Amino acid sequence: MKIIRVVCFLFTLFPLALSAAEISEDTLGCLDCHEYVTPGIVADWEASRHALVSPVEGLAKDLLERRISAIEIADTLSETVVGCAECHTMNAESHPGSFEHNGYTVHTVVSPRDCATCHPVEVDEYRDNLMSQAYGNLMYNPLYQKMVDAANGLHEYDSGSIVFHGGDEANNADSCLSCHGTEVRITGSETRETDMGEMDFPTLANWPNIGVGRVNPDGTVGSCSPCHARHQFSIEVARKPYTCAQCHKGPDVPAAKVYSVSVHGNIQKSIDKTWNFESVPWTVGTDFTAPTCATCHISLVVDEEGEIVAERSHRMNDRLPWRLFGLPYAHPHPISADTSSIVNQAGLHLPTELSGEPVSEFLIDAAEMEKREETMKKVCLGCHGSQWVDGHFKRLETSIAATNHLTLQATKLLSDVWEQGLANAENPFDEAIEVMWTEQWLFFGNSTRFASAMGGTDYGVFDNGRWWQHKNLQKMHDYRQMLQVLDK
Amino acid sequence: MKIIRVVCFLFTLFPLALSAAEISEDTLGCLDCHEYVTPGIVADWEASRHALVSPVEGLAKDLLERRISAIEIADTLSETVVGCAECHTMNAESHPGSFEHNGYTVHTVVSPRDCATCHPVEVDEYRDNLMSQAYGNLMYNPLYQKMVDAANGLHEYDSGSIVFHGGDEANNADSCLSCHGTEVRITGSETRETDMGEMDFPTLANWPNIGVGRVNPDGTVGSCSPCHARHQFSIEVARKPYTCAQCHKGPDVPAAKVYSVSVHGNIQKSIDKTWNFESVPWTVGTDFTAPTCATCHISLVVDEEGEIVAERSHRMNDRLPWRLFGLPYAHPHPISADTSSIVNQAGLHLPTELSGEPVSEFLIDAAEMEKREETMKKVCLGCHGSQWVDGHFKRLETSIAATNHLTLQATKLLSDVWEQGLANAENPFDEAIEVMWTEQWLFFGNSTRFASAMGGTDYGVFDNGRWWQHKNLQKMHDYRQMLQVLDK
Amino acid sequence: MKIIRVVCFLFTLFPLALSAAEISEDTLGCLDCHEYVTPGIVADWEASRHALVSPVEGLAKDLLERRISAIEIADTLSETVVGCAECHTMNAESHPGSFEHNGYTVHTVVSPRDCATCHPVEVDEYRDNLMSQAYGNLMYNPLYQKMVDAANGLHEYDSGSIVFHGGDEANNADSCLSCHGTEVRITGSETRETDMGEMDFPTLANWPNIGVGRVNPDGTVGSCSPCHARHQFSIEVARKPYTCAQCHKGPDVPAAKVYSVSVHGNIQKSIDKTWNFESVPWTVGTDFTAPTCATCHISLVVDEEGEIVAERSHRMNDRLPWRLFGLPYAHPHPISADTSSIVNQAGLHLPTELSGEPVSEFLIDAAEMEKREETMKKVCLGCHGSQWVDGHFKRLETSIAATNHLTLQATKLLSDVWEQGLANAENPFDEAIEVMWTEQWLFFGNSTRFASAMGGTDYGVFDNGRWWQHKNLQKMHDYRQMLQVLDK
Repeated sequence: MKIIRVVCFLFTLFPLALSAAEISEDTLGCLDCHEYVTPGIVADWEASRHALVSPVEGLAKDLLERRISAIEIADTLSETVVGCAECHTMNAESHPGSFEHNGYTVHTVVSPRDCATCHPVEVDEYRDNLMSQAYGNLMYNPLYQKMVDAANGLHEYDSGSIVFHGGDEANNADSCLSCHGTEVRITGSETRETDMGEMDFPTLANWPNIGVGRVNPDGTVGSCSPCHARHQFSIEVARKPYTCAQCHKGPDVPAAKVYSVSVHGNIQKSIDKTWNFESVPWTVGTDFTAPTCATCHISLVVDEEGEIVAERSHRMNDRLPWRLFGLPYAHPHPISADTSSIVNQAGLHLPTELSGEPVSEFLIDAAEMEKREETMKKVCLGCHGSQWVDGHFKRLETSIAATNHLTLQATKLLSDVWEQGLANAENPFDEAIEVMWTEQWLFFGNSTRFASAMGGTDYGVFDNGRWWQHKNLQKMHDYRQMLQVLDK
Repeated sequence: MKIIRVVCFLFTLFPLALSAAEISEDTLGCLDCHEYVTPGIVADWEASRHALVSPVEGLAKDLLERRISAIEIADTLSETVVGCAECHTMNAESHPGSFEHNGYTVHTVVSPRDCATCHPVEVDEYRDNLMSQAYGNLMYNPLYQKMVDAANGLHEYDSGSIVFHGGDEANNADSCLSCHGTEVRITGSETRETDMGEMDFPTLANWPNIGVGRVNPDGTVGSCSPCHARHQFSIEVARKPYTCAQCHKGPDVPAAKVYSVSVHGNIQKSIDKTWNFESVPWTVGTDFTAPTCATCHISLVVDEEGEIVAERSHRMNDRLPWRLFGLPYAHPHPISADTSSIVNQAGLHLPTELSGEPVSEFLIDAAEMEKREETMKKVCLGCHGSQWVDGHFKRLETSIAATNHLTLQATKLLSDVWEQGLANAENPFDEAIEVMWTEQWLFFGNSTRFASAMGGTDYGVFDNGRWWQHKNLQKMHDYRQMLQVLDK
Repeated sequence: MKIIRVVCFLFTLFPLALSAAEISEDTLGCLDCHEYVTPGIVADWEASRHALVSPVEGLAKDLLERRISAIEIADTLSETVVGCAECHTMNAESHPGSFEHNGYTVHTVVSPRDCATCHPVEVDEYRDNLMSQAYGNLMYNPLYQKMVDAANGLHEYDSGSIVFHGGDEANNADSCLSCHGTEVRITGSETRETDMGEMDFPTLANWPNIGVGRVNPDGTVGSCSPCHARHQFSIEVARKPYTCAQCHKGPDVPAAKVYSVSVHGNIQKSIDKTWNFESVPWTVGTDFTAPTCATCHISLVVDEEGEIVAERSHRMNDRLPWRLFGLPYAHPHPISADTSSIVNQAGLHLPTELSGEPVSEFLIDAAEMEKREETMKKVCLGCHGSQWVDGHFKRLETSIAATNHLTLQATKLLSDVWEQGLANAENPFDEAIEVMWTEQWLFFGNSTRFASAMGGTDYGVFDNGRWWQHKNLQKMHDYRQMLQVLDK
């Protein structure tokens, strides 16, 4: 078996070099200067599949092996590899930021619409994914906006009181929106001195940004590059957990931390040097012996016979019955990727009532939940028996119920605090006891649930897990009493 | 030297393929279906040593190179490799969960007793290791049970008070017991629809679980698979620190976090691609240039001449004079792996008095401590001069004393709180100030000591280290005063 | 391209073996015993460049490829590789700890002065680096000394009060000074039983230690080995982020944590197996496709044409306009590496006033700041367009201003607390509310700024970022009110 692997390995080194595709004249024009101006980008791109294979060659592959989902490719892209010019001059007319640059009309911000030329299915799927709407889901939700203001505002201490200020665009861009995505706008143009003489460039507001729900100057939302890091666009990078960890490692969404101490994460870190992160489709057992984030949530996975274990989907919710991320309670997944219009009976823009009841009309029903769980379970069953898998998911539901229960207790306590006038419900994220309530679900509830979902042991106990929900509830109890004393 | 390494590397690729051992008929029967049903398990196993070498071939190796400790191997295992059937039908009569499965009597939960067929010494040693008793050491200790209840209980807020509830089996299984091990029980059987038609399977309570002290249906305690991840059972995985990190990364036992920022951890992460994690015995300097957890605590380590630096031991305490993990004080290592019967003079099931005094009758004496320290030091001396090593251990004792001192101060303060009736000593882990006391030793004392033991710098200072013991003591001081006000 | 890489790889395996240099007689004498006594050190050294190339061979390289900066090498070092004797008998007369050892006069603690024999420029530069002065900058600063005392002191709880004690040498050595460096002193000598019979050795205080600002027995300050881990002195280790993480991972300086979730860190962890961490100079795009700590802060970086992108400098401030590490405010970088003499107008040994104003006379001016920022930007521009880079640095200034603002609010609040007599300003780091103030800048301000500087997303928000500055300010507000009640 190992001998076979060595031989296979040697073969994998050569075929890319056999491509007949050439670099386009336009891209050669870009490279002429840019290999001096931005040598890192050029070298990175040279190591990419984009630089070695033309879209037409990609189309000629067997269906399961294809990395592009377009049925047809425009003639202009048929003979050449995908270089600078192919992407940065694509759909020039739709990009407000297009500018004349040495005879080419280029735009800085390549958008999903450009990528859709070859990857239309992925772009479509991603549009139905919560992540693509991450800007609006945060910034168009009046309640979450209050959290943004609380976190990012330049509050002041003045004569014994805290004077509240909302977050401004610059601080929001460096904070929440670094993951959620900024709204990138063309604000004008400027002339800059370059190695090639004076040149004009458009100026961009809220730039740079690589948030998943970025609002691009061409009006599209979402960005492919947070996960498909420029300019190598390596599938290996996208499939490794470090990509997801960019945004999913904090106490609010500790998925990557949990994964890293799970058995899966252990095996991956220990022996993934023997895995094949490049192959499409991705064969369980042969290409990898433990899943990464991508395996369970996105990738096209097959078995050694080529039977499909899981279909590729960039609409990650396809395999997600629950939204573990409590707002403030874990709940069935929202139907629409755009959640900004969800409102509960109390008029709060939340997918659950403060009592824990899901706001059903905006959330998937039990049948859809079951279907999604079955889809996910198929991945698990590649390596685990059905009793193992069923037991795992039953336990996850236990933990969802337990953490929601402890969130409810904190909410009841906070409601009393509000009713007693010891804190002001107007912004539920600004006062100290409200921050404690927020962390009850945002940090400790989430951590416990993610740990339960992925086997992250101490993240469900002492590392922001159950111990912290217990501790926080006890502290809130005493804090409420203290506020009563201060109120006298 | 590098040339030699390349040649050696090429040789290491081939010998496994030269094994004359075959897959047994029984295992071939398993594989017939399971390469479709659970392709990931099969492929993982195919990459294992179990799949390539028979126990008898393993026995033929030189003593130091052996990976099995049995003196003799039963005839039934003499000609074949170790496959599905060999483990999952072993000792069928002793497994209550054995069931008829396509003509075989198989059991789901392979236990240490099964592994002992080839690895009896390791199983024996492990039984004397605290980890194998991790279930009972937690769950049969009435005091620790109170912490489990506090952490995992579904407490309620009702009319201004917190109503306490104990942890239930399901939440315990997803919390503390995910590392400590659950009690896996056969609860009945069920018929399931499978790709092969209807089949009967036993049903298991508290499953899945891979805790180190798991109570198995056959009555054995402990599990080998937390560290020897199924079904490749790779020694590389077991020797890498990511395996230990599964359970030893939280604020209570931050050993893996400390290691990761130690010089040893730095070197390992930076250049372990050039190391040989597969060789037995493990040669210092040649196979690795910095220790992992396994090197210092478990592995058989030799020098280039084949001289033994450290004997292999799955009784990890062999090299541990101190239990750094404070309960609530760091103390000499317990004599018996089963600590549930330890009681101090105050009647608390703790290895130390609340005043810090060790409960000597249950703990190793100074001579044994010295012997163990000498055993550990031999590993250190492979790469460090004796003054370096002595200085290191002296400093560790300083830190043990310092952290125990600061735990004592917090304990004195809490005793006053109890005496004043400001908190209830009945469960010392439930009220907010008791949680603060608990973290003084469980989080901050432990972190500081682990950092001292392994060179983890900031984990002994600002990252849950000394700064936090100081801060926590100051906060407890103010908290006590606040409780006095609330009490009025 | 991949074919070329394979061929290159094969070539890189051999040339080292072609060195004509031999191991000196003296070193052979050391090895005779030490390959048995400390086999790990010897094997590690054998894998080093020191063991394979003589300084004179190193000198013969093209200027950019040289790893030694000496213009000339003494005759005694001209024919042999750099072994045990070369370093451990170097400058014997200047080492108070030199001792007779089997006919050689050796010293345990190799100091920068010894390394300067071949690496004088690096030693000179490092001396102008804050890190080399880390011992004095902490221990000779009367204000910071109070923090050391607060963190490391063995405080006592007695009859309701906390009795303050300062830190002692042993605890300081295991705490702050494990990174900052201890003062290593020769205290005498002792006779020890060894495998070679009785031998005399000097005894050392505060040993072992590998802090960056270690005070060595020969009076030099600084140590090369924290970053150039003994005895392989691998440039690969030094260039990987895990080296910096040894000291820069805690909540006070979370640079490595931030890097690990940045896009740069993601790419490095995902695909650095394809990078060349050994080549000098280091070619952007070819040798690596994303920077590590060393790339931006230290290394000699060139493009594929050999044009210099950044000069090597061990005076890391060369590329640092700001000191992001707030004391308590982020401020322009200090002029001198020795900061212990900086005093503000209030007489506090701080580089800023408590009002936030930088103490300009000790800090670099705007012109120097701009120059340093330009130097850093050149590294960024290797892979990013100028608008991207400018936008990034503008945003960093926003975050510096925002975090400094929130530090100021906490400082104003604390000033009121002090004025009201609710806490004692004598040591601003000991009482609970002072600890809260300290964390406002030391933990949360720093985390937010490091995240802004390197793209560490949640470290600027929920993971010790803006959310925590907000929360802490709210808690301090309530805490102040509680202190007023307790004061009554």
